[in-house]
Amino acid sequence: MKLSEVQKIRKRALALLKKARITVTKGEAKTIEVADFGLSDFRTIGLGLITYENNERYCAKELIMFPRQTCPEHRHPPMDERNNGKQETFRCRWGRVYLYTEGPATARPRAKVPKQYQQFFSVWKEIVLKPGDQHTLPPNTLHWFQAGEEGAVVSEFSSASHDETDFFTDPSINRLPIYE
Amino acid sequence: MKLSEVQKIRKRALALLKKARITVTKGEAKTIEVADFGLSDFRTIGLGLITYENNERYCAKELIMFPRQTCPEHRHPPMDERNNGKQETFRCRWGRVYLYTEGPATARPRAKVPKQYQQFFSVWKEIVLKPGDQHTLPPNTLHWFQAGEEGAVVSEFSSASHDETDFFTDPSINRLPIYE
Repeated sequence: MKLSEVQKIRKRALALLKKARITVTKGEAKTIEVADFGLSDFRTIGLGLITYENNERYCAKELIMFPRQTCPEHRHPPMDERNNGKQETFRCRWGRVYLYTEGPATARPRAKVPKQYQQFFSVWKEIVLKPGDQHTLPPNTLHWFQAGEEGAVVSEFSSASHDETDFFTDPSINRLPIYE
Repeated sequence: MKLSEVQKIRKRALALLKKARITVTKGEAKTIEVADFGLSDFRTIGLGLITYENNERYCAKELIMFPRQTCPEHRHPPMDERNNGKQETFRCRWGRVYLYTEGPATARPRAKVPKQYQQFFSVWKEIVLKPGDQHTLPPNTLHWFQAGEEGAVVSEFSSASHDETDFFTDPSINRLPIYE
C-alpha cells in the first residue's frame, strides 16, 4: 500500500473516531495501524487499529472499521503451558458490529461476505453488538466480524496480543505487513 | 450509605458518562459501583466504577469521578509466584485527572487534599492526564488520583483485579463494602 493511501485511510479513521467522540493523541493519530492482512483489498477485508497498551499481561486496543468492512476469520492458538491463547472482549463503542463465532449458525446473518471470500468464513453464529454491548471470546475460538452500514468503533480488551501467531482460515492472509 | 443516596450518585455518574459520550447498558447503569472506601465521605474520597470485564487474565473498567473527588493512596501487592501484583493503565477519556505516584515530588501539585486526609498521601510525583493521555503503573507501586474541576471519566486496563487485597495507606479504609 502506498503511503498516500495509508494517510487517506488514517484521515477517514480519525473521522470515525470523532463521530464516536473518542479522543486520541496526535502521535496515535499519525500512527494508526492500517491492517489489510496482505490481501490488498482494505475496504472489504481490513481494520484500523490503535494499540493503547500491550504488555505481557494485558492489551487494550481501539478497532476502527469502515462501513461493511470485515476482520477475517481467525483464532488465537495456545502459546505455551501457561498461555492457552489470547482471550478477548469486544465492546462496541459506536456503530454496529456483527460478530460471528463457533456454534449453531444463524439462519439469516446480517453480515454480507463477497462471493470470492465466502469459502474462508466457516463460523456463522451471530452476535450483534450495539454501542455498550460486549462479548468475550474464549481462547483458540474461531471468529470474525463485520461493521454495519455506518462503520464501527470497538474497544478490545484482552490478554497479551501476539498477532504474528494468529491462525487465519484464508491461507493467503498475512497479518503483517503493517503500514505505518 | 442509604440506597436513595446510592441512586442519587448513580444518576450523577450517568450524567458524567453522557458528557464523556460513553454508552453503557441499562443493566450497567443500574449497578454502577459506588465505592466510598468505608469513609462515608464519598464526594471527597470515592469513585464510581463500571467493570466491563474481570477475569483471571485481564480487567477493563470505566472510572467515573466527581469534581475534585479523590481515589485514595494505595498499591496492589504481589499475589503469588506468578502474579507480582496488579499492573494497570489509566487512560483519560474526559475531564482532567491528576495522578500521583512514587518518585520526586512535584513542587506545586494541582490536587488539593483536605487537611484531615493529608497524612495518608505520601507520594507526590504528578502526572496530568487530559483526554487521550494515559499512564501505566508497575505492580505494587503507591498511587492515588484526583479529578479536576469538572470531574473525569477514566478507562482502566489492567491485569486481573483483586480489590480485596489492595493495600491502602489510610488504615481506616475498607475497599469493600460496595453499594449496589
